[in-house]
Amino acid sequence: MTTQPLLIGGEWREARELLGAFRAEDPTTGAPIGPAFPLCGAADVEAALQAAAAVADELAAGPPERIAAFLDAYAAGIEADAEALVDVAHAETALPKQPRLANVELPRTTNQLRLAAKAVRSYAWTQPVIDTAAGLRTHRAPLSKPVLVFGPNNFPFAFNAIAGSDFASAIAARNPVIAKAHPSHPATSERLARIAFAALEQSGLPLAAVQLLYHFDYGVGARLAGDARLGAIGFTGSRAGGLALKAAADAAGVPAYVELSSVNPVFLLPGALAERGEALAQEFFTSCTMGSGQFCTNPGVVIVPRDAAGDAFVSAARAHFAAAAPSVLFSRGVLDHLQAGVATLRSAGAEVLAGGTTGEHGYRYAPTLLSVSAETFLQQPKLQTEAFGPVSLLVRVRDVSQMAQVASSFEGNLTGTLYSANDGRDAEAWSTVAHALRPRVGRLIGNRMPTGVAVSPAMNHGGPYPSTGHPGFTAVGMPAAITRFTALHCYDNVPEQQLPTELRDRNPGGVTRCVDGVWRNDDLGSA
Amino acid sequence: MTTQPLLIGGEWREARELLGAFRAEDPTTGAPIGPAFPLCGAADVEAALQAAAAVADELAAGPPERIAAFLDAYAAGIEADAEALVDVAHAETALPKQPRLANVELPRTTNQLRLAAKAVRSYAWTQPVIDTAAGLRTHRAPLSKPVLVFGPNNFPFAFNAIAGSDFASAIAARNPVIAKAHPSHPATSERLARIAFAALEQSGLPLAAVQLLYHFDYGVGARLAGDARLGAIGFTGSRAGGLALKAAADAAGVPAYVELSSVNPVFLLPGALAERGEALAQEFFTSCTMGSGQFCTNPGVVIVPRDAAGDAFVSAARAHFAAAAPSVLFSRGVLDHLQAGVATLRSAGAEVLAGGTTGEHGYRYAPTLLSVSAETFLQQPKLQTEAFGPVSLLVRVRDVSQMAQVASSFEGNLTGTLYSANDGRDAEAWSTVAHALRPRVGRLIGNRMPTGVAVSPAMNHGGPYPSTGHPGFTAVGMPAAITRFTALHCYDNVPEQQLPTELRDRNPGGVTRCVDGVWRNDDLGSA
Repeated sequence: MTTQPLLIGGEWREARELLGAFRAEDPTTGAPIGPAFPLCGAADVEAALQAAAAVADELAAGPPERIAAFLDAYAAGIEADAEALVDVAHAETALPKQPRLANVELPRTTNQLRLAAKAVRSYAWTQPVIDTAAGLRTHRAPLSKPVLVFGPNNFPFAFNAIAGSDFASAIAARNPVIAKAHPSHPATSERLARIAFAALEQSGLPLAAVQLLYHFDYGVGARLAGDARLGAIGFTGSRAGGLALKAAADAAGVPAYVELSSVNPVFLLPGALAERGEALAQEFFTSCTMGSGQFCTNPGVVIVPRDAAGDAFVSAARAHFAAAAPSVLFSRGVLDHLQAGVATLRSAGAEVLAGGTTGEHGYRYAPTLLSVSAETFLQQPKLQTEAFGPVSLLVRVRDVSQMAQVASSFEGNLTGTLYSANDGRDAEAWSTVAHALRPRVGRLIGNRMPTGVAVSPAMNHGGPYPSTGHPGFTAVGMPAAITRFTALHCYDNVPEQQLPTELRDRNPGGVTRCVDGVWRNDDLGSA
Repeated sequence: MTTQPLLIGGEWREARELLGAFRAEDPTTGAPIGPAFPLCGAADVEAALQAAAAVADELAAGPPERIAAFLDAYAAGIEADAEALVDVAHAETALPKQPRLANVELPRTTNQLRLAAKAVRSYAWTQPVIDTAAGLRTHRAPLSKPVLVFGPNNFPFAFNAIAGSDFASAIAARNPVIAKAHPSHPATSERLARIAFAALEQSGLPLAAVQLLYHFDYGVGARLAGDARLGAIGFTGSRAGGLALKAAADAAGVPAYVELSSVNPVFLLPGALAERGEALAQEFFTSCTMGSGQFCTNPGVVIVPRDAAGDAFVSAARAHFAAAAPSVLFSRGVLDHLQAGVATLRSAGAEVLAGGTTGEHGYRYAPTLLSVSAETFLQQPKLQTEAFGPVSLLVRVRDVSQMAQVASSFEGNLTGTLYSANDGRDAEAWSTVAHALRPRVGRLIGNRMPTGVAVSPAMNHGGPYPSTGHPGFTAVGMPAAITRFTALHCYDNVPEQQLPTELRDRNPGGVTRCVDGVWRNDDLGSA
């Protein structure tokens, strides 16, 4: 059997331990498309780990400018190949070419790579802190070990294991990467990896700075995640998969940054509903069904008062959902998982208002709206199950006080949203609900749907467990996302010429440093 | 049986589930001293957890000034009671009253509390980041859950579960604390807790912001560490204990900041030895035996060339060790553990040059120097076993290249030290060894012993696994140590009046914030 080559140790080569092969599928039909890709075994995984580890020191000690040049060249290469990349990603994911793939996700991906390059050149991610009196200088530094990145199914570019935020973050901190592509879009991943490889050659980085594996089985993955030769893991995907990898990594002392699941509660305050309920129903429907609802920040639970304005919102939303054609999902796995999720919600007491059915061909599921009372929701933790897809659960509440009670009942989520009236009449209700919701979410949003995730230094795409494994980190936004893949390094009374560039007295690059408590970008000892 | 009361939920009260009692011991004789303290059961632990959790929201939402006032009042209260505190700590630990307890550790502790108060007032630990164009504002916020702090045996004040760095850090971030004192100095911990309690009353914080437990058994501790109602754990102590707690916490998604063990390698470069070998032998002996060697950053392994200058150093060091009287250790447990550690080193091939014997009374062990060849060291990972006490292992190397090889062989450590000649002749050797050592240690030190740990914003008292559980955090130094006990909170398009103080447009307190990439302390929209 011939399968596409792996990228290991600077070479495109056949899997040496080929345990099987798989092909991508056209999600609209379920038919296999494109070439066969390898399901590789432990020997190939070991080779990737050794190759990455072998260049870790060289990468860590090398000039940051090479890293920045690589990231910029990679972004340019992606742009130059945009049309073909969009074609292959569309074929493998059924995501719309426009605007989604070509106008939103691909530019976001290249922007992210360039923002990482900018953070490399400015040294912003290194956060230098200098105490002149104590003779102490500390900054963030490379892990000097490989970072293992697992890409999810839902962003073939922007979260791709070999092009997305985790990848850019890990490389920006001068760590080698072992990219584990998502097997639902292998040809997109290979195409990106070939562009990355050309950018490596162009920038003079070690060619083994990046490895690409397409698929391995569960046991091999868990053993790799628990290998102490790794510096860290970045994972975006299902809760079960992420927790298994986290457990293996935890046991080996490997920091695991896992983004797991989230239902992203949206609270419609009474004034907002009275003021613009119809418009909110449209906004909610659009957000919930965009990209077939396959977003980490999909509005999966909407809290709606049990009053006339609430009823009107529900009936408008129901009409939108009922009129919609089935959405195409990424894969059989996503469809199966979604059906199981909806079944869980129903068996826990939710009633289907619209949808709840599969389509005729391929991996299709009707946009689905469910409803449940706050009383039942508060009794049934299973109603917080994520149904990944175009599905949302309405929770009907008696009043603002019960809204706050529902807010308090949520486990950790990436986001929580409040909609309030423009005239300020919801201010007190906002305070009440936000107070309960705030500690349970990473990003608190006002009057817009959670599905937009800006790549900004002030973004937090993270949240309390179990939405992620640690409440203190974001997976999106430079330079913050980079700090996940760093170690804190202190220099105590170390001779000037033995210090890293950004910790020296002279600061010709104008790096921003916290010197004796003040952020400044001049030389040490300046007035 | 009457035992000292626990502090739970704002009350000093008897243990409700008294599983046993214990007393402190005079380490110089082994005789019990002071009153009996409770070994409490799951019911008391549950009560402490519930009491702390019940005030978490109030504490998180309350004014930071109250927290700062508490920390300042606590520091003042400790100073006012200094003489009695030093007496009781001396009796329980046998650490010298002067300079150690009265002139070093107590001032360090009050300084640390005041630096935490300063970080609270300046909001430095919240690290505000604002993106005006995107409408995003992010900062670090309380966990809104209790933090469980385990204090170690070796700093009855500065790392005490109810007064030390973890305590000050957790409270500064407005989290309630459950302090688990070290059972070798219970009366010191009670005395501190009574001062803390008075400071709580004085500052108007909820009285249940702080609980004190003295001792519980292993199973109870592991269940508590794995309780998802906790926000985080801070632990300083033995590797076995810390790893067990970390495993329980990891499984529940509770971040565990554990500081475990470290041998703190010291590399004596050839020029330094030739220049001042005798002086280095004195400096090394003093550092290794200070506080009976019971420091996390004790110089446990010293790498010495196999040449004439190296031999002279060894013989001078050996003379110092051989002439020293046995050191008093904290407890039977420390003595047993140290003897086991030395036995491990010997069975792995180390030869005893001096010491290796216990004293006649109490918990005494002779300052002990061992030696081994680099070849054996490189073959035997057990030679990296920490022997907690006045013990150090010399590793004799052929040349600088073998020194670098030894450096590369170390697992994660808190510190790594290089001594170089004053005339610059070791510059190349420094580069070679430091390159190998740097990724394996949290703090790289030049020409001073690792036992001094300054409380500075530029300190890193942390390091790669297994010295700690995560390479990105420090346990000492404000505001950095505080960030361990925080969650990242983003506000996305949230109305101005619903934002936390330090994220609002107006910035009357002059909080330093990163606004559109620039650190500044003015109002938003200023020119």
